[in-house]
Amino acid sequence: MFVPTLMGQCTPEQQAYWLPRALDMQIIGTYAQTELGHGTFIRGLETTATYDPETETFVMNSPTLTSYKWWAGGLAKTVNYCIVVAQLYTKGVCHGTHPFIVQIRDEETHMPRPGVKVGDIGPKLGFNTADNGYLGFDNYRIPRDNMMMKNAQVLKDGTYVKVARHGKATYGTMVFVRVLLVNEAAFNLAKACTIAVRYSAIRRQCSPDSEGSELQVLDYSTQQHKLFICIATAHALQLNSTWLWKTFSDTLAAIKQGNVDTLPELHALSSCLKALSTADAASLIEQCRHACGGHGYMMSSGLPYLYAFVTATRTYEGDYTILLLQTARFLVKAYEQVEAGKPLTPTVSYLSQAFTGKKLPWDSSPDGIIRAFQALAAGKLSSTVKSLRKRLESGLSYEQAWELSTIQLNGAAEAHCRAVMSQNYKSEIERLTVNSSPNVKLVLQQLYKVYLYYWALERTGDLLLYTSISESDIFELQLRYEGLLKEIRPNAVGIVDAFDLRDEVLHSALGSYDGNVYERLMAEAQKSPLNAEPVNQTFHTYLKPMMKGKL
Amino acid sequence: MFVPTLMGQCTPEQQAYWLPRALDMQIIGTYAQTELGHGTFIRGLETTATYDPETETFVMNSPTLTSYKWWAGGLAKTVNYCIVVAQLYTKGVCHGTHPFIVQIRDEETHMPRPGVKVGDIGPKLGFNTADNGYLGFDNYRIPRDNMMMKNAQVLKDGTYVKVARHGKATYGTMVFVRVLLVNEAAFNLAKACTIAVRYSAIRRQCSPDSEGSELQVLDYSTQQHKLFICIATAHALQLNSTWLWKTFSDTLAAIKQGNVDTLPELHALSSCLKALSTADAASLIEQCRHACGGHGYMMSSGLPYLYAFVTATRTYEGDYTILLLQTARFLVKAYEQVEAGKPLTPTVSYLSQAFTGKKLPWDSSPDGIIRAFQALAAGKLSSTVKSLRKRLESGLSYEQAWELSTIQLNGAAEAHCRAVMSQNYKSEIERLTVNSSPNVKLVLQQLYKVYLYYWALERTGDLLLYTSISESDIFELQLRYEGLLKEIRPNAVGIVDAFDLRDEVLHSALGSYDGNVYERLMAEAQKSPLNAEPVNQTFHTYLKPMMKGKL
Repeated sequence: MFVPTLMGQCTPEQQAYWLPRALDMQIIGTYAQTELGHGTFIRGLETTATYDPETETFVMNSPTLTSYKWWAGGLAKTVNYCIVVAQLYTKGVCHGTHPFIVQIRDEETHMPRPGVKVGDIGPKLGFNTADNGYLGFDNYRIPRDNMMMKNAQVLKDGTYVKVARHGKATYGTMVFVRVLLVNEAAFNLAKACTIAVRYSAIRRQCSPDSEGSELQVLDYSTQQHKLFICIATAHALQLNSTWLWKTFSDTLAAIKQGNVDTLPELHALSSCLKALSTADAASLIEQCRHACGGHGYMMSSGLPYLYAFVTATRTYEGDYTILLLQTARFLVKAYEQVEAGKPLTPTVSYLSQAFTGKKLPWDSSPDGIIRAFQALAAGKLSSTVKSLRKRLESGLSYEQAWELSTIQLNGAAEAHCRAVMSQNYKSEIERLTVNSSPNVKLVLQQLYKVYLYYWALERTGDLLLYTSISESDIFELQLRYEGLLKEIRPNAVGIVDAFDLRDEVLHSALGSYDGNVYERLMAEAQKSPLNAEPVNQTFHTYLKPMMKGKL
Repeated sequence: MFVPTLMGQCTPEQQAYWLPRALDMQIIGTYAQTELGHGTFIRGLETTATYDPETETFVMNSPTLTSYKWWAGGLAKTVNYCIVVAQLYTKGVCHGTHPFIVQIRDEETHMPRPGVKVGDIGPKLGFNTADNGYLGFDNYRIPRDNMMMKNAQVLKDGTYVKVARHGKATYGTMVFVRVLLVNEAAFNLAKACTIAVRYSAIRRQCSPDSEGSELQVLDYSTQQHKLFICIATAHALQLNSTWLWKTFSDTLAAIKQGNVDTLPELHALSSCLKALSTADAASLIEQCRHACGGHGYMMSSGLPYLYAFVTATRTYEGDYTILLLQTARFLVKAYEQVEAGKPLTPTVSYLSQAFTGKKLPWDSSPDGIIRAFQALAAGKLSSTVKSLRKRLESGLSYEQAWELSTIQLNGAAEAHCRAVMSQNYKSEIERLTVNSSPNVKLVLQQLYKVYLYYWALERTGDLLLYTSISESDIFELQLRYEGLLKEIRPNAVGIVDAFDLRDEVLHSALGSYDGNVYERLMAEAQKSPLNAEPVNQTFHTYLKPMMKGKL
């Protein structure tokens, strides 16, 4: 975030000074926004930068414990520079949060500079190589030039000058990071699938009859049910990340032409895709771990690290719940546009269905299921808007009515995102396999069908409300889903091999290409420091005295 | 497990020798059953104990890498005795698995005895104080007397004599451990709730209008939606554990009277209650962590430890999927009993509904919702049996048809268990609050309503299939659920305080009674070894040379 923020928030002159040093690694930096007491709500940040025209410096302060910066990666022991987001005060007026380049450590000795309090925030779930730190200031001065002045300036005399529309300027970086996170979710889920599917082909358990040899656990329906949705989701997330990247590039190009019309849609899409991708990937990685039984619990399986890494992305750069609510706000506006007879942007054009008042005729083809997901999203949104208006009619303010409806709003945003993801998954597969062999097409289609059937069967309640699906249709879909798992089974190992993840990348005793699961588990166990000596000193100190009744 | 197994599997003479030494801590033991390559399927264990009449000893061997014992707690560095489950061979015949008391370390020096290979299995997800070990044997001899002979004996000449019905004898210990696990799930979920609810009363975020101060996050509907189901579930699990304990005691008493009729039902109940309790507790503890944002990720929050501890219980002592399938087997038998006009045991008596062919009239009272959950369980079981029979008709064997239907069978077992848990939750609350104040009753009723509404709204698909619930009924239930959250809000902190968990037990910077969240987070951070020196040696070794372009 240090370099992208330098690029996005500095004037050309500032860039010319800072960028070469940062890219050359002469200085190492990080981006510190979140504080101990403040995350999502940027307006609530407490760190202050007060301009002093006498010395032409900003005086940085952390007025409270909760104002300490917290979490920034690399901050604890590594970086010597930091982009600090602080409330800007000049001439006694607060102008809101602005970014400042702050040197926190001496370039030669690496000692924290006087007035800078910096350190490690302590151990976290799995994620202990990120060097997350805290940072506080006690009347620490930085030159006026260190304010990042692309969007706003403080002149030498302390006059505040707004240059660009503040706010939208940071959109680019934010959406860019979300695209990366969707991509990362896909990549890590693919790793977890590879580990769990390969292990399930090695691991054997029980035999259906009393005499036969034990089956590969991958032969069991329940195991296929746990794992094949993970493979399909890894594909879905990867393709949605590609699609989001393309949409992002198109929007950037349009903005350069002065057209910002597609920006709200991009923001709504990147919000919900980031939310759903990271949440789905995290819960499915955990499902992969469960599918590996006890051995999935070993750190040497690699799975606990993957889970810890991905579950963090569910929270940072916009928490799951908050991001879905941002998408919901866009959807409610879109709903009002339909009511007003105004045209809709492409990803919400299906919302016109919300007004037919009729159930969508059920059609179990992939396109039919995608239309059903859209009908379901439209139906849920419509029902949510009904709740919202009922509350407004009862005399509540819009904010109050909105707050009381947030559970339903999140449900509507999730349904919208699922419909978008399903549509993109299918259309990207079709686009990319135009020249593929029929066999490749078949396998990829089997996987997106697994995705569609799985989510249809998870959402039968909504389907029954908003489509004409019947009990026998559901029963039939369940049987088709179960049949599909058996069709995928013979190719399952080949499909995860196709992710082409080297053993060094997987770093898993369970998932290596050679399948030597048990040899690797034992070899990893031997590395435990506890195995360095046959009898631990604690035996003599504690155990033996206790056993001899002398404690 | 060492002492209970000694009590359950030894003859009185053996008990007289071993128990006093174990209870006195003169020896420390563990129970080693699971092997590197074998978990659930006990018949597949590979460790052998071969009787040699010449020396009147058993020769213990680990013929393969996969036969190494793996996971037993305390084994790695602590215990000097071990109950080892091994395939018994005598006179050239294998008599299946039996338990043996094996001395693995010298009582004086603690050195592993010659022929014993024992060590640590390496780091696991969170759970690194359990001293889990591995154990292998190379022609290691133990006296004949060390076979635990309550249920089967090997005479001096090697003759094998079966004493008791093998198998059912171990039922008691197994069910006992499951009761403990349900109880433990409740206790740990209560800890997580306490942490997350208290923190949510301290943490503030955003304000509904632009001028107001930031709200406590506990005031947000989405936060209440995440957390209040956790409190209700902690109550539900605690009360179901009490109920299961009582059912267990009644069954034991009946067995002593020679009546084993209720044993299958107890087995089916303890299986699904263990499965659902540990799975619900683990996922809701993780939901509590998510509800704490970034700080829930700090180890000092205590939440990652709680999750690691409870997610393990989902797998050990019977994996989630396997245990639900055991319940499903009981349910299918019960279904056949209804068809045959035979009477049913109490917890499945509702299954007679599966044959009415009519939808249950929807009634949104608590009793009505519980009846709906039963109708839903009966309907799902009926639909599953239909799948099973369709597959049998197509010519598959029973084992094949069963295997193909396991996804649905698990769904039916989960629905059954949810109905049982809901019923027990409500009736135990009523039983325990007969003499309580109206206010206490009110609060406890609000919580079980949260549980019932929450699960009804999660299962609208099944409710629409098996009850007469309509779209407007669902809409109405959603609004009632949202209203209930607001009713509980003022008492939420008081309700978790009532779990009466001391700060020393919670061990959480976020959850302490005094609410000094930020002070404690900072104090915990200061304990990080990285904060012991202002500049880490790695700066001089790696960072500085890199920054000076000399790497």
